[in-house]
Amino acid sequence: MSDQWLTTLKTDTPQQGYELAIKMSRMGVKYTQPSEEIREKLRPNYDEDTGNLIAISHVIAVNFQTIASANGYWKTERAYRG
Amino acid sequence: MSDQWLTTLKTDTPQQGYELAIKMSRMGVKYTQPSEEIREKLRPNYDEDTGNLIAISHVIAVNFQTIASANGYWKTERAYRG
Amino acid sequence: MSDQWLTTLKTDTPQQGYELAIKMSRMGVKYTQPSEEIREKLRPNYDEDTGNLIAISHVIAVNFQTIASANGYWKTERAYRG
Amino acid sequence: MSDQWLTTLKTDTPQQGYELAIKMSRMGVKYTQPSEEIREKLRPNYDEDTGNLIAISHVIAVNFQTIASANGYWKTERAYRG
Amino acid sequence: MSDQWLTTLKTDTPQQGYELAIKMSRMGVKYTQPSEEIREKLRPNYDEDTGNLIAISHVIAVNFQTIASANGYWKTERAYRG
Amino acid sequence: MSDQWLTTLKTDTPQQGYELAIKMSRMGVKYTQPSEEIREKLRPNYDEDTGNLIAISHVIAVNFQTIASANGYWKTERAYRG
Repeated sequence: MSDQWLTTLKTDTPQQGYELAIKMSRMGVKYTQPSEEIREKLRPNYDEDTGNLIAISHVIAVNFQTIASANGYWKTERAYRG
Repeated sequence: MSDQWLTTLKTDTPQQGYELAIKMSRMGVKYTQPSEEIREKLRPNYDEDTGNLIAISHVIAVNFQTIASANGYWKTERAYRG
Repeated sequence: MSDQWLTTLKTDTPQQGYELAIKMSRMGVKYTQPSEEIREKLRPNYDEDTGNLIAISHVIAVNFQTIASANGYWKTERAYRG
Repeated sequence: MSDQWLTTLKTDTPQQGYELAIKMSRMGVKYTQPSEEIREKLRPNYDEDTGNLIAISHVIAVNFQTIASANGYWKTERAYRG
Repeated sequence: MSDQWLTTLKTDTPQQGYELAIKMSRMGVKYTQPSEEIREKLRPNYDEDTGNLIAISHVIAVNFQTIASANGYWKTERAYRG
Repeated sequence: MSDQWLTTLKTDTPQQGYELAIKMSRMGVKYTQPSEEIREKLRPNYDEDTGNLIAISHVIAVNFQTIASANGYWKTERAYRG
């Protein structure tokens, strides 16, 4: 994918970090199924199927762990400082 | 989503952290399926299906890991202090 | 939930930590399905379905990771100490 | 459960750690379904169902992460030492 | 597998790290099913099945956690520095 | 299991670490289903079922996290060094 969509894991706020986690979760799907037409056709399976909605929230949670860690949990004062 | 719903990962107690983890898990669903009407229609699949209830508890557990880490596990004395 | 059920992640032993992980995993279900009557009705799906039993053990494992980390893995001597 | 089955996460070798992870994964099932009779009846679903066998290996992997971390990955020299 | 496909976890950018995570996720499949013919036959199950697409994004997320950590989250200044 | 199959988590390269992660994932299955005959019978379910192939790649990813961490991500210079 030549498009630059992930240049940094840094975000200003936890919510922007959560939204980046959503984007990353969707990109995992997009890399595997690049056809927008097929993805559009599958869309109702995503957003009207309870099990899939929970599974998506799970993937977001895993990606958010990474982003939160990359941002030092958005704490101004680091607890680890010596 | 213009609404500010996640401004900090800090909570006063582990239980508030757990409840924030629940909120984050639900927001993962809400971002993917913004229609409250459809989410309401799907509700019985969430809360009366055993597999889905366990899956939700799993997502909460992952989000709680992040929040607990962000809060230094709510320890007053940090074990890492030099 | 006004009931205080999670005031600390600290436990005296790994086993108490594991049992707290079980409690947390169940609370994830309880928050999503507060009706004791419905949960009671769903009980056979939990404890007589192999896939669900394994899934529950998975959720416990994730929560135990958090608790174990919060307790410094119950080591009397911290390896990180400077 | 009054039986003391988890008094430490320390093991002498990675393999003993892996075997403790297996035990923890099984205990998650045992706590949820304490009846040995029912567990025995469900046994073929565990060990002759491919999806369940993979799911069990997954739970073991998560528990092993915790145990490996608790044992400093069984390294004689800690990389973190100051 | 004699082919050298993973000589380092280091990447220049988060996006290259994400793409390495994709590669690692696919290699997990390739090691288990080395026949390209069979994998090709299974391909529609991957990229036209919603549940599988989400599951793949999940595996990528887990591998990306590892890679992001290996790269210090691509931060030029390390927060942990003493 | 009296056989010594996991004496160290150390490997020389990331790829060897990944291959150890594969071995660990398979051992989780072997401990649960020790009969080689039954495992052989189940083999087509593993390597010709898309969902199972993805699930196996997931378990490998989790085990690789542990191994990568144990090896300091195969970095010659540790970023944490004081």
